[in-house]
Amino acid sequence: MRKLFMAEMEAVGDDLVEMATLVNRAMKQARVALESRDTGLAETVILQDARIDYLQNTLDERTIELLLLQNPVATDLRLLIAALRVSSSMERMGDLARHVAALVRLRYPNSVIPDESRAEVEEMAELTVSVGEHLQRLMTSYDLVEGREIVKLNNDIDILHSQIMQNVTEGSWNLSGPQAQDLTLLVMRLERFGDHGVSISRKIAYLVTGEWEPPAMP
Amino acid sequence: MRKLFMAEMEAVGDDLVEMATLVNRAMKQARVALESRDTGLAETVILQDARIDYLQNTLDERTIELLLLQNPVATDLRLLIAALRVSSSMERMGDLARHVAALVRLRYPNSVIPDESRAEVEEMAELTVSVGEHLQRLMTSYDLVEGREIVKLNNDIDILHSQIMQNVTEGSWNLSGPQAQDLTLLVMRLERFGDHGVSISRKIAYLVTGEWEPPAMP
Repeated sequence: MRKLFMAEMEAVGDDLVEMATLVNRAMKQARVALESRDTGLAETVILQDARIDYLQNTLDERTIELLLLQNPVATDLRLLIAALRVSSSMERMGDLARHVAALVRLRYPNSVIPDESRAEVEEMAELTVSVGEHLQRLMTSYDLVEGREIVKLNNDIDILHSQIMQNVTEGSWNLSGPQAQDLTLLVMRLERFGDHGVSISRKIAYLVTGEWEPPAMP
Repeated sequence: MRKLFMAEMEAVGDDLVEMATLVNRAMKQARVALESRDTGLAETVILQDARIDYLQNTLDERTIELLLLQNPVATDLRLLIAALRVSSSMERMGDLARHVAALVRLRYPNSVIPDESRAEVEEMAELTVSVGEHLQRLMTSYDLVEGREIVKLNNDIDILHSQIMQNVTEGSWNLSGPQAQDLTLLVMRLERFGDHGVSISRKIAYLVTGEWEPPAMP
């Protein structure tokens, strides 16, 4: 019975690694699609998101079954609760990458990124892709250094996000209504992707240390 | 021991009702603040959100303690898992109301709503407020009719959201960049508020019926 339980726990961990791998790839591809207006790649991101959603459902069902049937001990229970929460954040991150890709496809042959804002947006997208990379490593290694890196990246993402929004507000880029709409949607999605990365980092830190506190600031 | 456990379970339920009540009030007040440019009321919404966040933390800690210490039976376990998820959605709904209020305060004395879009936005805000009302009733009564009402309201919210975004994209309202930015942020928040309402409705339906399926469409 215990052996079966351990195998099931391992399967939960494997699902989390696969989800993180897919989320990382999705944001990487969404970024390339965004910067090169590649609708084929955008399509790929959109289609692949179904696999992330499927994994979340599987993982949820598996976790709830384990909780219901096995009376897990404290450590296992903590792991299962963390798994439920982390999978829900990763599912949302997959959605955000898909929304970026959908916007690329919708606006083609025009670019979602207004020329005036290209440097800032591309910098923000690069940081967002890094969040995905560190997330994959965090879910594979459970090394909290990865989580702290995500927090650091997210601070930079937030600063860039504010700068970009400020430039729209003040009219310094002189964007049209439709341009401002696209840019607002786009950078909000990148920003939320980073937030979910931080939220996962905190949950993993809690899991590893048993202490509920945010990772130390860099 | 069992008596103490039941008291704690009841406390979790009470926290959920209080959160729903506060979320409902927050969106109601945010809407009035939005439509009447009332910065005092906007300030109230912003300050009150700390109570929602506090309740979520309390509820989370209480739930995890109960899961860890008490080996709850299947029904209780299902309730506790649902509580974790519902509280996380409600916390986010509180954030969304706070973001609407913050935007009102930031743009004062200007209105966040461009004149051209006022009718559609006010209709959308009215539906969003209704979601909050039905949420409060759902969390008090666990009557699934309330959940189905939320799904119905959310469909209408989504339709209005698409129409508004379409009008910006096509330039039919001829908005400036800053106006389009505000409108995009605003309606995205209302739309997400509805989505979280639907997500909670599904979790409560699962809790009540034990069947994992979305509430029947109206």
